[in-house]
Amino acid sequence: MAAISYELTHKDANTKARAGILHTLHGSFPTPIFMPVGTKATVKGVSVDELKDLGANIVLANTYHLFLRPGADLVKEAGGLHKFMHWDGAILTDSGGFQVFSLGELRKIKEEGVTFRSHIDGSKQFLSPEVSMEVQMALGADIVMAFDECIPYPADYEYAKASTARTSRWATRSKNAMTNEKQSLFGIVQGGMYEDLRINSDKELVEMDFPGYAVGGLSVGEPKELMYEMLEISTSNLPENKPRYLMGVGTPDYFIESVMQGVDMFDCVFPTRVGRNGMAMTHTGRIVIKNACYTHDHSILEENCGCYACRNGYTRAYIRHLYREGEMLGLRLLTLHNLYFLQQFMKEIRAAILEDRFLEFRKSYYDNLVS
Amino acid sequence: MAAISYELTHKDANTKARAGILHTLHGSFPTPIFMPVGTKATVKGVSVDELKDLGANIVLANTYHLFLRPGADLVKEAGGLHKFMHWDGAILTDSGGFQVFSLGELRKIKEEGVTFRSHIDGSKQFLSPEVSMEVQMALGADIVMAFDECIPYPADYEYAKASTARTSRWATRSKNAMTNEKQSLFGIVQGGMYEDLRINSDKELVEMDFPGYAVGGLSVGEPKELMYEMLEISTSNLPENKPRYLMGVGTPDYFIESVMQGVDMFDCVFPTRVGRNGMAMTHTGRIVIKNACYTHDHSILEENCGCYACRNGYTRAYIRHLYREGEMLGLRLLTLHNLYFLQQFMKEIRAAILEDRFLEFRKSYYDNLVS
Repeated sequence: MAAISYELTHKDANTKARAGILHTLHGSFPTPIFMPVGTKATVKGVSVDELKDLGANIVLANTYHLFLRPGADLVKEAGGLHKFMHWDGAILTDSGGFQVFSLGELRKIKEEGVTFRSHIDGSKQFLSPEVSMEVQMALGADIVMAFDECIPYPADYEYAKASTARTSRWATRSKNAMTNEKQSLFGIVQGGMYEDLRINSDKELVEMDFPGYAVGGLSVGEPKELMYEMLEISTSNLPENKPRYLMGVGTPDYFIESVMQGVDMFDCVFPTRVGRNGMAMTHTGRIVIKNACYTHDHSILEENCGCYACRNGYTRAYIRHLYREGEMLGLRLLTLHNLYFLQQFMKEIRAAILEDRFLEFRKSYYDNLVS
Repeated sequence: MAAISYELTHKDANTKARAGILHTLHGSFPTPIFMPVGTKATVKGVSVDELKDLGANIVLANTYHLFLRPGADLVKEAGGLHKFMHWDGAILTDSGGFQVFSLGELRKIKEEGVTFRSHIDGSKQFLSPEVSMEVQMALGADIVMAFDECIPYPADYEYAKASTARTSRWATRSKNAMTNEKQSLFGIVQGGMYEDLRINSDKELVEMDFPGYAVGGLSVGEPKELMYEMLEISTSNLPENKPRYLMGVGTPDYFIESVMQGVDMFDCVFPTRVGRNGMAMTHTGRIVIKNACYTHDHSILEENCGCYACRNGYTRAYIRHLYREGEMLGLRLLTLHNLYFLQQFMKEIRAAILEDRFLEFRKSYYDNLVS
């Protein structure tokens, strides 16, 4: 019995979109759900009280970064990640694989695992399914991810086939190494941009009976149409009673199109990163706060928004001033707004699913975009 | 009738320390009081809710910075500084003089005012008593400061005498130019490090009957003993029924020694600046959080502290991790702690005054210092 479970509440009448509830040992949360990213055991610029306030229930932390600094031992000594960062909601940790593979020339892949050089001090490091599970057990997240290879785009068929087969073997090793029953291990399906490889990856991982599945290797530079095509293939072969997680995706259009394929969970640094770069997300498009047109704009970021910044009346003119002056509060307000916006957007998606009007919601979203 | 008034509650039996209440149109606050600095219409990294939470009642904003960016007109258009920055407590603005004089070679002092080059874009600018009052009226703070010259240290007698005389003339012009009755103009006494000049400056400014007085030109590089000597002279000749404000001072030892001379108000960037640089202030001394000794220190910054960080259990080990990783939350937690610490320290000073045990409190403070 896994520590987490997925309860399917309702399927949209016209699409594969679905509303459900994700039960964890740190609370039960409506899905589809967006998980803010707290790479180094903190969502950048945001306190845990603010995360609660804006509606976040589960956050993601990165195994690779915490493995290097402050080190899994220190987090374990502190009582695990929940206690270390004072977050009593749910946590998901990735496997560290994605960051390691992003190192390019600095890493070397073998069957046993991956040898790489730390981006911080150049020291030689090693990650494998077993090491990743050991680190993730020390961190103690509710949901942990199998160690996989995210296949780069483009990749030829032979490479993709060999890599996907290894990811399946690594999934078995990950499952054998994850021995903490309070943590639920998700498998990650791969297969590159090849239909048969994706179908086979699904098949092999579903046989291993994970409590949840992530669709990996998408949004890595391929055309959007190809991404949605591959997503449809991967999700079609996943069991209905398990949650499906699309990694690294965090904008409204991606949410809409992916939820329509039956995806339940998302994470992305996008809302926090662009917030720090002076951008606010709204239902009608994006606001680049440094633009001169906002100098005398004494309205809030978005009408009827319930985020900390908007409900307290912080104006575009003030936030623009803070941003231009490099004041931390400006970055905080934009980050809080963006994270709230995505939580709110997910609530709207879920309400539309429950009322069988997901396609109307989708059309209305695209119709309202002005920028 | 000035918009602010000072109510003397109690004088310590053994020193000149005094407890009072500062009445403003944005609330009445116990004194002695410390004012966090919000240079550019925000206390760096801190929201107004957090300022309230940590006990701040009045903040300082800088006329020079706001004059240059975003400009007084924009703040006025937004409805004044309170509304622009969403702070419904009291605000004090300085005159801009101190920053202008700090520009050194970039400024030129004449009787009419000071011509200077903006530190941002090199543009030619002009500040005078009249311009400073015009800007401060646009900003709309509760307490505004006369335009003065902060005499550098060391300065010869003739320079100090001429400058102090000009500061008196500028005080008259400031008073004539400040026509908003909802704002209270404080005079600033100067006199350099010369007893007769300080006594004369007091005399001239007291005759002008300001609702409050700042002691200027101290903590500018002179030895501490000399500073306290000059402070004693300046405060001795100020009326008992007006608040006394020592500018630019923000550490416990300065508070204790200055309150003992009858000072009621303080401001300083110290607690916020050192917080951003990784230092926590405590009753027993300072914590440099990056030091290796805190790596495995899972205790809070200071036992029994009620600040956001300490009451929620954020540990030194976690804050150290955040600080090393350049995470904004680390700077926020240290800043919140330091600001709370100074508010709390002032409360302890006030309680000691009310119970005629200020000297005991002072001794106990120095006895407890370990670093």
